[in-house]
Amino acid sequence: MSTFDLIIRGGTIATASDVFKADIGIRDGKIVQIGAALEGATEVIDATGKYVLPGGIDSHVHISQPSGEGISMADDFESGTLSALFGGNTTIMPFCLQEKGRPLREALNAYHELAEGSCYTDVSFHLIVSDASPTLLGQELAALAEEGYASFKVFMTYENLRLNDAEILKTLDVARQTGSTVMIHCENEDAIRYLVEKHEAAGDVAPRAHATTRPIAAEREATHRALTLAEIAEVPIVIVHVSNGQAMDEISRARARGLKVYSETCPQYLMLTAEDLDGMDWEGAKFVCSPPPRDKAAQEDCWRGIETGVFDLFSSDHCPFRYDDEHGKRAPKALESFRHIPNGIPGVETRMPILFSEGVMKGRIDLPRFVALTATNHARTYGLYPEKGTIAIGSDADIAIWDPSVKKTIRHADLHDGADYTPYEGVEVTGWPTTVILRGRVMIRNGELVGRKGDGQYQTARTRTL
Amino acid sequence: MSTFDLIIRGGTIATASDVFKADIGIRDGKIVQIGAALEGATEVIDATGKYVLPGGIDSHVHISQPSGEGISMADDFESGTLSALFGGNTTIMPFCLQEKGRPLREALNAYHELAEGSCYTDVSFHLIVSDASPTLLGQELAALAEEGYASFKVFMTYENLRLNDAEILKTLDVARQTGSTVMIHCENEDAIRYLVEKHEAAGDVAPRAHATTRPIAAEREATHRALTLAEIAEVPIVIVHVSNGQAMDEISRARARGLKVYSETCPQYLMLTAEDLDGMDWEGAKFVCSPPPRDKAAQEDCWRGIETGVFDLFSSDHCPFRYDDEHGKRAPKALESFRHIPNGIPGVETRMPILFSEGVMKGRIDLPRFVALTATNHARTYGLYPEKGTIAIGSDADIAIWDPSVKKTIRHADLHDGADYTPYEGVEVTGWPTTVILRGRVMIRNGELVGRKGDGQYQTARTRTL
Amino acid sequence: MSTFDLIIRGGTIATASDVFKADIGIRDGKIVQIGAALEGATEVIDATGKYVLPGGIDSHVHISQPSGEGISMADDFESGTLSALFGGNTTIMPFCLQEKGRPLREALNAYHELAEGSCYTDVSFHLIVSDASPTLLGQELAALAEEGYASFKVFMTYENLRLNDAEILKTLDVARQTGSTVMIHCENEDAIRYLVEKHEAAGDVAPRAHATTRPIAAEREATHRALTLAEIAEVPIVIVHVSNGQAMDEISRARARGLKVYSETCPQYLMLTAEDLDGMDWEGAKFVCSPPPRDKAAQEDCWRGIETGVFDLFSSDHCPFRYDDEHGKRAPKALESFRHIPNGIPGVETRMPILFSEGVMKGRIDLPRFVALTATNHARTYGLYPEKGTIAIGSDADIAIWDPSVKKTIRHADLHDGADYTPYEGVEVTGWPTTVILRGRVMIRNGELVGRKGDGQYQTARTRTL
Amino acid sequence: MSTFDLIIRGGTIATASDVFKADIGIRDGKIVQIGAALEGATEVIDATGKYVLPGGIDSHVHISQPSGEGISMADDFESGTLSALFGGNTTIMPFCLQEKGRPLREALNAYHELAEGSCYTDVSFHLIVSDASPTLLGQELAALAEEGYASFKVFMTYENLRLNDAEILKTLDVARQTGSTVMIHCENEDAIRYLVEKHEAAGDVAPRAHATTRPIAAEREATHRALTLAEIAEVPIVIVHVSNGQAMDEISRARARGLKVYSETCPQYLMLTAEDLDGMDWEGAKFVCSPPPRDKAAQEDCWRGIETGVFDLFSSDHCPFRYDDEHGKRAPKALESFRHIPNGIPGVETRMPILFSEGVMKGRIDLPRFVALTATNHARTYGLYPEKGTIAIGSDADIAIWDPSVKKTIRHADLHDGADYTPYEGVEVTGWPTTVILRGRVMIRNGELVGRKGDGQYQTARTRTL
Ligand SMILES: [Zn+2]
Ligand SMILES: [Zn+2]
Ligand SMILES: [Zn+2]
Ligand SMILES: [Zn+2]
Ligand SMILES: [Zn+2]
Ligand SMILES: [Zn+2]
Ligand SMILES: [Zn+2]
Ligand SMILES: [Zn+2]
Repeated sequence: MSTFDLIIRGGTIATASDVFKADIGIRDGKIVQIGAALEGATEVIDATGKYVLPGGIDSHVHISQPSGEGISMADDFESGTLSALFGGNTTIMPFCLQEKGRPLREALNAYHELAEGSCYTDVSFHLIVSDASPTLLGQELAALAEEGYASFKVFMTYENLRLNDAEILKTLDVARQTGSTVMIHCENEDAIRYLVEKHEAAGDVAPRAHATTRPIAAEREATHRALTLAEIAEVPIVIVHVSNGQAMDEISRARARGLKVYSETCPQYLMLTAEDLDGMDWEGAKFVCSPPPRDKAAQEDCWRGIETGVFDLFSSDHCPFRYDDEHGKRAPKALESFRHIPNGIPGVETRMPILFSEGVMKGRIDLPRFVALTATNHARTYGLYPEKGTIAIGSDADIAIWDPSVKKTIRHADLHDGADYTPYEGVEVTGWPTTVILRGRVMIRNGELVGRKGDGQYQTARTRTL
Repeated sequence: MSTFDLIIRGGTIATASDVFKADIGIRDGKIVQIGAALEGATEVIDATGKYVLPGGIDSHVHISQPSGEGISMADDFESGTLSALFGGNTTIMPFCLQEKGRPLREALNAYHELAEGSCYTDVSFHLIVSDASPTLLGQELAALAEEGYASFKVFMTYENLRLNDAEILKTLDVARQTGSTVMIHCENEDAIRYLVEKHEAAGDVAPRAHATTRPIAAEREATHRALTLAEIAEVPIVIVHVSNGQAMDEISRARARGLKVYSETCPQYLMLTAEDLDGMDWEGAKFVCSPPPRDKAAQEDCWRGIETGVFDLFSSDHCPFRYDDEHGKRAPKALESFRHIPNGIPGVETRMPILFSEGVMKGRIDLPRFVALTATNHARTYGLYPEKGTIAIGSDADIAIWDPSVKKTIRHADLHDGADYTPYEGVEVTGWPTTVILRGRVMIRNGELVGRKGDGQYQTARTRTL
Repeated sequence: MSTFDLIIRGGTIATASDVFKADIGIRDGKIVQIGAALEGATEVIDATGKYVLPGGIDSHVHISQPSGEGISMADDFESGTLSALFGGNTTIMPFCLQEKGRPLREALNAYHELAEGSCYTDVSFHLIVSDASPTLLGQELAALAEEGYASFKVFMTYENLRLNDAEILKTLDVARQTGSTVMIHCENEDAIRYLVEKHEAAGDVAPRAHATTRPIAAEREATHRALTLAEIAEVPIVIVHVSNGQAMDEISRARARGLKVYSETCPQYLMLTAEDLDGMDWEGAKFVCSPPPRDKAAQEDCWRGIETGVFDLFSSDHCPFRYDDEHGKRAPKALESFRHIPNGIPGVETRMPILFSEGVMKGRIDLPRFVALTATNHARTYGLYPEKGTIAIGSDADIAIWDPSVKKTIRHADLHDGADYTPYEGVEVTGWPTTVILRGRVMIRNGELVGRKGDGQYQTARTRTL
Repeated sequence: MSTFDLIIRGGTIATASDVFKADIGIRDGKIVQIGAALEGATEVIDATGKYVLPGGIDSHVHISQPSGEGISMADDFESGTLSALFGGNTTIMPFCLQEKGRPLREALNAYHELAEGSCYTDVSFHLIVSDASPTLLGQELAALAEEGYASFKVFMTYENLRLNDAEILKTLDVARQTGSTVMIHCENEDAIRYLVEKHEAAGDVAPRAHATTRPIAAEREATHRALTLAEIAEVPIVIVHVSNGQAMDEISRARARGLKVYSETCPQYLMLTAEDLDGMDWEGAKFVCSPPPRDKAAQEDCWRGIETGVFDLFSSDHCPFRYDDEHGKRAPKALESFRHIPNGIPGVETRMPILFSEGVMKGRIDLPRFVALTATNHARTYGLYPEKGTIAIGSDADIAIWDPSVKKTIRHADLHDGADYTPYEGVEVTGWPTTVILRGRVMIRNGELVGRKGDGQYQTARTRTL
């Protein structure tokens, strides 16, 4: 009988704080030994010359989410997790959306059913609170938090999703009492609608107007408001998908006032600008997401936040719609006005390669910061730590082995999601996760899928206990 | 026939920019000559050793405003304007409150009727938009602006008055189109209500909780939001009754982004603190107003704003209720919880003497800044300039002659408003307006009332034409 | 015998606070009457349709100042004041430079001799402290302040002029004790020299490197330091020629800490950029001044400071050198390296027309703000008020009558200074001061010089008495 | 033959990112294995119920440093390192002070001689640049950096140590070229001296004046200047011993501009205030250090910086002088004026227990943040990583085992430094490092010293290679 089921030998391991050479011994899906010259395993993977990192956690992805009449999301759990896996992820956190007027539990059951048996990575759900009813806030949320659904997302924008300040405060109150975590999408809906109406009235209906009518000011305002509500309710929050320096400043100012706040940015705010929405023949629709990409200065600000610690989380906000599809970006109504263009872009597979290449390989950040931004901080923020997000004794053996010598040009043809394009077509990257291990099981070996659909499992979250 | 009806001789005149010795010649209610050694008047007032200043304009006073069932405001136009006059004012600007579901015009007619024939100072009305209906926004406001009702106040707090962001944006839009001015009361109602409910649930119902449940954060948030909405709607605004440094910082930041914003503070934020609400036997109710007085640091910040130009306007926010009165502060429900205490304090008569004494006489500001803060900027902001707010050829002869040698202890017994207390009881001041002239007519001569009720007239405002 | 020597009839008068139509009666060089329909003068000027403004005060000009071996300034008092006069100024404030190791009094006597009998405008001197010796600081400065030399300029840059922090503190200390005012040129000399040496070592010696080696950071640093020294010494200061938003932010932050600080910007920071220094064939030298012009964003920031009150003073920093001249910009050593290019540009004649046209006529500022920025604030800051800087009873009759209908293209051929170029060649302006009156004497009538050399007199300043 | 020399069994290990239960296997002074149920060691330490942390690194201590005529520091390498060891440290970084006019190498040789054979912990030196001569900057520093002396401290204060801006820039330039790190003590010497002279002139010579004459403004100014110089020289820096929120804001602003800056605070800024300098009978001298402790608000700001990531490093700035000693705090001249009081306080032994107790046990920070602040970040910043500062395969087995159940009252009688007092006398703490291991050698076992003088070795630093 072998001591270990699997040994990863000779690689350079990185955690959110350390980089060192060692072998990893895995048994029963767990990391049980880290050290020099481990021996005695059923299987040995040679990682010489490679980086051995915690499997990525993408805590912000949308899968099979209802998206309006006639529109369907391009990914279900099968394609979404497969794409994630190929991008070096071992866990993703999609959103379970409450149907208005219905218990969250109902949506949760249905969502579990969709995921069950379909996943290539582990998954854990956030709950979207869209109907802040007394029942939900008074009873259901607390019960769900106790069961391990410990993060709620609330929206300050989108006609059908937005909560008002009173509702947000009540949700924050539940979060404080239950130790759960609230993620907030910060854009001022009324300001946006005011501008949308002006633009539509002026006949300015092309995709670019999507960016113009969701200005930085609308995001900055909602960000400051969300932070103030958290300050009033005395509870930490997560500001998701921050797109620019003004919103970052609000976060820094809140921290300077003593507030505990986590913040997230995404690849689109490092790589795209509003000018990408100008594409001919409605092609700008490929880049329509919210908040929209801004300008070069905002990109630099976001990079600075990646480098200096303003941001804790780097997620994809993967929200895929097919472009050349009447159920996707080119839906009939979308062609009439930007306001009906399905909102979101794919990115779960490219998230980490982009940050690895542009961040680590170009010297902007080191490996520990990469690991923190793409894995550890997600696990810690959303209650999956220490099982997930690190390479440490007792943790799940969720590991991605990165080959820093691979050079690739991103092509949608090579990706595994259900969309028909990638916003990063043609981007050249250095480094790619060539072998991916999920709870000790090799899922991808040297770029070949060897795991099976259904290998991914649901993960229950912990609540904060501070 | 005399050249002038009245000459004010030998005084030291101050405008918002200059201080000089000269005589003033008045004819037909207008200033027609300023110079050395004027001669030929029916009446001559010797102002030697005195300051001859523009009559004060208090652009933020509440008079005869509906205040909830069983509650009545302590001042009608007669007592309110008389008190204002004795405090050196020649114009006040009270608020005409739209009744929900009714045309503003209706309230306006009724309000004019109350004022007609009752006033000792000139008056001009602001309109409170409480019901942002399509009719009001689409038709009525524009018509009223054209008639000279060119400033609207909107509230972000108070259950029955607050507008939401969409309504505020629409109001701002009307303001931009008509060149009128929007005043915004910035406090986040939902945040306040959240805290009020917590405090009431905890049995913390004394007056001091009024201050605790309306924290600086709630004002800062609403201030930033109001400024952002104005930025989106591309129109100047007035932030009224700023109480602390954090809200001031929001204003400075907005200016640094290029926004045109006017801001106002009031005597209570220079002279009172939240500790004043701690008075025994519910006496703290005397100091209940919104935003509430803060702490010593906030007072210093507000003084700094007076000195360095953060503030453009110094108003009283006179909003008087009798203390020892079941229709006032000690209403039956008020004694049950702070949330029912009538909200507001008197101050129209003491506003200028306090700033003159604490500001000018103590060397914090000079006379031109005093004139700007108490008169000129009000006239310019609200469309009453150049008839009102300055001493210049062609302007109305609205003049207050201040004797800087008077020393007084403020006592409510000596004041002329309809309340039964002053929050500044016992405060010692140096300097008082001993003679007050309204459109050339001497209303107070050496401290004696000589004008008559009804001498005050309604003043129509101009819209901005920039 | 006439009542008045001169009446200016029918114009629109503006002060720093007011705009009104009236006649002005002048006697013995003073304004003695302002009113409707004045009669009885030896001379009457019809100003119908014109603006009647206080004569400009340019408190930052360099005239006949020693500028290094082989270099001479293009203007003496005759040409400098004539040019100023044609630009609507009635007073200028040049700098008297202490020679190292010599008493300031000596330089002052020599400087008075140069001015005596040569001036077309009034003049008043600032003193440049270049040698902060114990004698100067302990005795001479106080004596000079008492005599009416009440403003000192200190430099944080320029090898031969810079004072260190200890010397600046001692100078500020004298200023506090004597009620005089310290102007500070804020650029960090060591930082600049560090960059200059790098650039020269790299062979980068063209004029553009002048801007590159004096970056915004060097100005921001020195500005923050100067403000801190003033905070420590507890005395107001003037930050001269602010060129960008970062330095402006330092000023705003200091005000928010409670410091009294005045600040100045100049036409070059509104109209030029560093790219102007890129001119072919060393022509960029025409735009070499310190701080250098920055970029478009900095221009916008400076405009915002003009509009919102960050700046109190708008001066020319007129410092003229001939371009095509071996004693000017094209000195032999200057052609070898940018560091030897004589530092400064002409602008005393164009300062006000540019701000009038770009500011008032384009709606960025109103007339009172124009008057404050170009005249009143200068007089108040430097102790010339109330004789200078306003239109008020008892003030000197220093008046410029502006015709807002004049349209002009700025050409150096039309200007009156001693340089051979203007940085603003070809700029189109609307509005020009066509008649200029100095202490009641018409110096320019309808664009024609009628005054005489020597009509300008020296003006003694007051110290602060707060 | 055993597999390991030493196994630490059953403890809870923490790194700067992770907390997990595991055994540690040590061989030849290195950590070679981390895992479950390790077996086969010469010695086993049971750490059940304890925290197993990286040995502390105190990167800011002063030992045997020349301190002025007649004054001697209370610690040499023997007592200093012994005290450090008892406080849970395994490495300290004292300063080698260049003698003016002499090569740094000379001081270095002498300093090595003092350390050689005397140490209980490992040591690594910073170099203090006091004489920025061309030889030092042009040759010596670069050579020393290559040999592994890769951090230089420069002072902006202290008459005999301060460098001017030009010298600092040159030092920064060497640092950029050699990949070494510059630590800057930020206080404006001229401002301080100006105030010292004022206070002495006024007869205000008691210890408290030490704090009054070194105000926050002087630290804020120097901090902003240092950051700007680093921005100009394009090189990261360390701002040491930050004492207040204003200096923190400067650091945050610099980071927002994109600068890489590390920052440090110390126990005195969390635990003491300027009021401690008020002690009777000159006892306030016990708390004289620079920057001085500030007020409660500054303490809270520093705690916030500990919590939110403004600070990277938590050091002691141990700089011990005996209190009741004519060669220490009560030197004859010190009793005449505060300016002669030896500047510094002891703290190397109490640094970590205070942060553990006040920070970790009170819930302000978690264990990884504690480890980062006290060990890992020091090793990374100063080139000792990965040998030092973490628990990872291949790293030195420098380990402190903390017992969180120990409750202690800090008494100088129980400490091991050479001073005769501690500023924290009477402070109660929970948690203490009871066993300390240096490169695999147990130095303290259950509170008993078992290591020997001389066990500590000199550690050479790496330069940055980014
Ligand atoms: Zn979102
Ligand atoms: Zn999303
Ligand atoms: Zn209000
Ligand atoms: Zn009000
Ligand atoms: Zn200058
Ligand atoms: Zn100059
Ligand atoms: Zn130090
Ligand atoms: Zn130190």
